[in-house]
Amino acid sequence: MTPPAPDPALLRTLVLANRILYSQGVVDGFGHVSARHDRSPSHFLLARSMAPGLVRSEDIITFDLDGTALDAAGRRAYLERFIHGEIYRARPDVQAIVHSHSPCVIPFGVTQQPLRPVFHMSGFLGEGAALFEIRDIAEDTDMLVSNAALGAALAATLGRRSTVLMRGHGSTVVGSSLEQAVYRAIYAEVNAKLQLQAMTLGEVTYLNPAEAAKAAAVNDTQMSRAWELWQRAVGPIE
Amino acid sequence: MTPPAPDPALLRTLVLANRILYSQGVVDGFGHVSARHDRSPSHFLLARSMAPGLVRSEDIITFDLDGTALDAAGRRAYLERFIHGEIYRARPDVQAIVHSHSPCVIPFGVTQQPLRPVFHMSGFLGEGAALFEIRDIAEDTDMLVSNAALGAALAATLGRRSTVLMRGHGSTVVGSSLEQAVYRAIYAEVNAKLQLQAMTLGEVTYLNPAEAAKAAAVNDTQMSRAWELWQRAVGPIE
Amino acid sequence: MTPPAPDPALLRTLVLANRILYSQGVVDGFGHVSARHDRSPSHFLLARSMAPGLVRSEDIITFDLDGTALDAAGRRAYLERFIHGEIYRARPDVQAIVHSHSPCVIPFGVTQQPLRPVFHMSGFLGEGAALFEIRDIAEDTDMLVSNAALGAALAATLGRRSTVLMRGHGSTVVGSSLEQAVYRAIYAEVNAKLQLQAMTLGEVTYLNPAEAAKAAAVNDTQMSRAWELWQRAVGPIE
Amino acid sequence: MTPPAPDPALLRTLVLANRILYSQGVVDGFGHVSARHDRSPSHFLLARSMAPGLVRSEDIITFDLDGTALDAAGRRAYLERFIHGEIYRARPDVQAIVHSHSPCVIPFGVTQQPLRPVFHMSGFLGEGAALFEIRDIAEDTDMLVSNAALGAALAATLGRRSTVLMRGHGSTVVGSSLEQAVYRAIYAEVNAKLQLQAMTLGEVTYLNPAEAAKAAAVNDTQMSRAWELWQRAVGPIE
Repeated sequence: MTPPAPDPALLRTLVLANRILYSQGVVDGFGHVSARHDRSPSHFLLARSMAPGLVRSEDIITFDLDGTALDAAGRRAYLERFIHGEIYRARPDVQAIVHSHSPCVIPFGVTQQPLRPVFHMSGFLGEGAALFEIRDIAEDTDMLVSNAALGAALAATLGRRSTVLMRGHGSTVVGSSLEQAVYRAIYAEVNAKLQLQAMTLGEVTYLNPAEAAKAAAVNDTQMSRAWELWQRAVGPIE
Repeated sequence: MTPPAPDPALLRTLVLANRILYSQGVVDGFGHVSARHDRSPSHFLLARSMAPGLVRSEDIITFDLDGTALDAAGRRAYLERFIHGEIYRARPDVQAIVHSHSPCVIPFGVTQQPLRPVFHMSGFLGEGAALFEIRDIAEDTDMLVSNAALGAALAATLGRRSTVLMRGHGSTVVGSSLEQAVYRAIYAEVNAKLQLQAMTLGEVTYLNPAEAAKAAAVNDTQMSRAWELWQRAVGPIE
Repeated sequence: MTPPAPDPALLRTLVLANRILYSQGVVDGFGHVSARHDRSPSHFLLARSMAPGLVRSEDIITFDLDGTALDAAGRRAYLERFIHGEIYRARPDVQAIVHSHSPCVIPFGVTQQPLRPVFHMSGFLGEGAALFEIRDIAEDTDMLVSNAALGAALAATLGRRSTVLMRGHGSTVVGSSLEQAVYRAIYAEVNAKLQLQAMTLGEVTYLNPAEAAKAAAVNDTQMSRAWELWQRAVGPIE
Repeated sequence: MTPPAPDPALLRTLVLANRILYSQGVVDGFGHVSARHDRSPSHFLLARSMAPGLVRSEDIITFDLDGTALDAAGRRAYLERFIHGEIYRARPDVQAIVHSHSPCVIPFGVTQQPLRPVFHMSGFLGEGAALFEIRDIAEDTDMLVSNAALGAALAATLGRRSTVLMRGHGSTVVGSSLEQAVYRAIYAEVNAKLQLQAMTLGEVTYLNPAEAAKAAAVNDTQMSRAWELWQRAVGPIE
């Protein structure tokens, strides 16, 4: 069943999310961001396989939760669209997902060091980031979450958290809106950089769970301030 | 009592200070800079709640030292305006204040490593940076200095120093002018980066208190050179 | 024997490869990239001695595998063109070569730490990077691979691998196309930066050989996505 | 005695050197570069006290080796012009001098770690960088080389080397031409960054003195390639 057309404002925000993630250094030529369809919770919107920094509205494809494109019209889909479909299936609260190879986060995924909230901007990390080891699910793979079974395993590892690290690969961050998912992806990277530096100085005092939860709640009321700046930094989308 | 209008030149400098702090990487979408009102020492000027890099003169609001806006006209105020009000109350010598999440400074606030002057440009750190642990004042908080009591506690921790680190949050730097506060905020960040790197090499020789004080004094006569460059880097404010 | 003119598309791609390597931070004023001649496997195309970021099509010279220029017309050749000639001679599968002083890679060449694949994007490092110690071939040199004997020794050290580190100098990366060699040079640098950071956190889990090989194979099908972005970042070549 | 006017080409190169050092991150609002007068070896050319990145030809002042300005016409001189005068006096071979707070170099000046040549581009560091401890000359100072005695002491510490680190301050690099001094200042910074990273990996193999000397000699024949790129990066000087 084909869902109705999504809200044009959601499409515009999704295009902007792609551009912001590139402009802010979360994604390079790879990585992707999706939004759950606003009029059909069993569908999601994701660009065709291309660099996020170049995405325009005509590049957005609608997928069902199995990762089947409804309107690809010959356009190639991301191999890892199953990350999105399976998380949307497992987490009805999630409305947007960012998958990236955000550079400072990767070291935490390949060592035994947990990513933890160094400052209030990353209170959403208070529950801790989950760690997905693809070897636990399948034998030697190409590291990609390229089918529904791997996507479901990733979603299970994520659980109720905001962030899952993927060993030897990258990370995935979820949110209740595109703005929140983008905010979290950007500040997961900022936090990782801070934590890498702080750990060279000695024992680090992290936010405790109560501080993290309270900080996350108040930050959610302030996100538009950053979004306005990030949008300005992207410039006009031709 | 409503104070007279501030000097338009002060307003222009405050707008520029906002832009410079963003351009030089001290603030991102968050952080703020204020100036004490030039014609009413019991008032200060601070932008409405927005990204510093986008501030224009029409965004500046006048506050009293309790953090009450005189001319908000519906505009939202920064949650942490109490940082400014309480420091202006406690420190009559202070004419400008920068609060930021300046990235390299944060690691020093979450470890036991003091931020110390690595080179002459940061002689203003000679007395050492103070360290504010919000847990000493209140139980688990959202980490924000969002009321007068917390602001007063922060001001007390700052004491006579130029800089106070805020654990799990950021830092606040004061000056006898906007130019000096901006200079200090920028070079606190530069110094922190240098110190992080120097500490990986071994024992660091810091400026001693006499060197730091003398260097700070001479730097104060040279700041306009840097300000001119930073202004140029900002470009025209449309 | 003078070979026929190369495919103009190959020339355009080679010019773009030069510009991309500069734009992406792999080369500065030094370093070079070549392509094997598409109509004569015993010749290769390489810019005259100049900064890669400024190369235009009229700067490309044709060389034979001995490093003799066919059409220099007075233009100065890179001192290290023997890197290219001798690798093309030893490796018929290689169609493009990047030599650079890519900054994060250099530390691995001067210590006993092997460069290994931290994430799937650098699966091409699965076999490990070779390490060329010029002191093993010649007594104290100027470090440059500036004759055929040194070039042949470098090619022998490279063996069947994709990457060879050159102690106290830089690295050389090969590919079956310009796109692949450029991709590998960029992600060798990204991987080196990730590995430097991950090693500060503790024991690192690298991709195992099977994971690396599979990841490399799938990445080869996705490179055009990044190339399109890198080309856009270069902008028009005047 | 007033010297004749300097070669206009030298003036243009000096302006460009100022701009390049800023564009390449060696100087910020502070630091300075001079050239010995081409027609009077007992004079040198140096900008008035201002940010190097903004220098134009009309900002250049002629000084004698005592640091006395001949044509200041009310313009303020750099407090540390004595660095230049005293090195020109002590080193007849030196034709250009860069003083900077080049960031990655500073950690080596405040620890016991010598700055050594990690790769061939920094062969000029083969003799090692000298280390100037101003406390050995004068009691607690403002750290500035602000008189002839301090300048002479710095020149004595420099000796026959290319580079002297200044504890808690910065560094000074000399050359036989502006191009060479700029090249050395840029690659001293690059080398310092590489060395900082390499030392985190373990024991570093540096260029030995013979390798360093040979590499430095060949690099001197290749500098124009980088200068052309750096000039392009500066853009037109309005």
